[in-house]
Amino acid sequence: MDSFVAGVDIGGTGTKFGIVDNLGNVLLSDTMSTKGHADINAYINELHDKLMILIDKVGGVGRIKGIGVGAPNGNVYTGTIEYAPNLPWRGIIPLTKLMQDKFKLPVRLTNDANAAAVGEMTYGAAKGMKDFILITLGTGVGSGIVANGELIYGHDGMAGELGHTIIIPDGRIHPGTLKKGSLESYASATGVVISALEILNNTDKPSSLRNIPIDKIDSKAVFEAATAGDEVAKEVFEYTGRILGISLANFVMFSSPEAIILFGGLTKAGDLILKPTREHMEANLIEVFQNKIKILVSHLKESDAAILGASALMWE
Amino acid sequence: MDSFVAGVDIGGTGTKFGIVDNLGNVLLSDTMSTKGHADINAYINELHDKLMILIDKVGGVGRIKGIGVGAPNGNVYTGTIEYAPNLPWRGIIPLTKLMQDKFKLPVRLTNDANAAAVGEMTYGAAKGMKDFILITLGTGVGSGIVANGELIYGHDGMAGELGHTIIIPDGRIHPGTLKKGSLESYASATGVVISALEILNNTDKPSSLRNIPIDKIDSKAVFEAATAGDEVAKEVFEYTGRILGISLANFVMFSSPEAIILFGGLTKAGDLILKPTREHMEANLIEVFQNKIKILVSHLKESDAAILGASALMWE
Repeated sequence: MDSFVAGVDIGGTGTKFGIVDNLGNVLLSDTMSTKGHADINAYINELHDKLMILIDKVGGVGRIKGIGVGAPNGNVYTGTIEYAPNLPWRGIIPLTKLMQDKFKLPVRLTNDANAAAVGEMTYGAAKGMKDFILITLGTGVGSGIVANGELIYGHDGMAGELGHTIIIPDGRIHPGTLKKGSLESYASATGVVISALEILNNTDKPSSLRNIPIDKIDSKAVFEAATAGDEVAKEVFEYTGRILGISLANFVMFSSPEAIILFGGLTKAGDLILKPTREHMEANLIEVFQNKIKILVSHLKESDAAILGASALMWE
Repeated sequence: MDSFVAGVDIGGTGTKFGIVDNLGNVLLSDTMSTKGHADINAYINELHDKLMILIDKVGGVGRIKGIGVGAPNGNVYTGTIEYAPNLPWRGIIPLTKLMQDKFKLPVRLTNDANAAAVGEMTYGAAKGMKDFILITLGTGVGSGIVANGELIYGHDGMAGELGHTIIIPDGRIHPGTLKKGSLESYASATGVVISALEILNNTDKPSSLRNIPIDKIDSKAVFEAATAGDEVAKEVFEYTGRILGISLANFVMFSSPEAIILFGGLTKAGDLILKPTREHMEANLIEVFQNKIKILVSHLKESDAAILGASALMWE
């Protein structure tokens, strides 16, 4: 009888979960809010109630090999979520233990971007690659690094926090970490909005964005304005791509990957962001790395990719 | 009968080579200039003449397992030196093949800093570690990265060029690569001198360095002035340590090493550079990495370390 795995992706806002077969098909899936629970136990109770509905539909826990979980600051070695600035729970959360006790199934946890990298390697753009870096460009910036065919976990399980690397010393402050000038402060959906507001506030350049109430300007509005030819919005993407491109050059000079795979909301801006990103990456690479590192956009369906990535942990 | 390995370290200025036993003792060693040869063949002829004298002293080629070579931009996969900005030979040099033909011995080549990392792991401060980064702070800045107990070579053998990562976008130009704001432009012996000259030229701060002819100011002079309490010289090391510290924070957030091992001339400045480096590394790390990454100074004898590192390639 075929067996399945469950994948759970815990995001800052929502949690996605589903049942995956060994060909990488998401058979069933559902979502719930990550927020609004009294504590982590209340969160796990709701997750249990909702995920068990899916598990029962495919034949019960006997058919499930285990549950793979991706979460920000998830530590594969300890099974704990550690000091995640974007999640509701403070300190160190023993997630694997709590879930195993509740589900009576093996549970494997890792960083959400590491899970996505495993997903890309198992089902996506990185199939067959032994050296690549996955960068997620969403509300924040996450990363999963594969070298010699293995995820880099580091001595403590926490490697791959490239969104927090400093690219502009003394630059823009990050509201979660309070560090200055990190990649995430610029090359995220949040960063794009801040960059737009900075130009709107500090210059008198004409822009269609000035017709939108300031608190309604989101990265989608900036994207739409840029697509319609708005110069300020185009400048925002050029600037974002420049910062991202320099950072990617730095990552290449670290682990010399065959490809960098970009994933998440910001990639929908297409060449608006990819063109300057490629240009500035190449311009900052030393000769030996030039014109050989691919920048690819993930082709996994976004709603499935996180679940696939998390579930792939259980096939490892 | 015991066998030995030969280690060759090709630097921008000088080449060091020696015979090493399996306990890591450098039995015999010698040096020659890397410069001043008509071409790479003339260089290898001189190296052959001088290294064979040592090989003959330990019993001839029959006692030698092989020759390990460390060189800037040395590629372990192809055995070639590729576009090394600090060496006299342009383009791609098939060093392994040329040396094997000449010596009739197995030859293994890697990047000089990778060789040093293998040396630290085999004989030095990184013994027993599975995740660490070696940074060489000499005329330039090199690096060797070990994760999961293995050197990170990348898809093309060229990983670990951390000296060329950009830390100040649009910053100081690097005369070799023409890139702006790379770590090597600041945290090298050359960078320290430029930082000193910048302060001397751009301010009227009093300094004992003003008594030295400008073309005679080297990193040693800046170090001696700082040790004697000179405020400008101390500012130079504080600034250098700040740039290095932010960069080390970035490297930690990439591979989360147990330790960063510093090696080379600049480490002789001791706490003058180590204190600001540690401070600024910690200040730029997100919480999960704070107060757990060691910064260690290599305790291998510098003249031996490069030879040991290169030779250790042959024991792998």
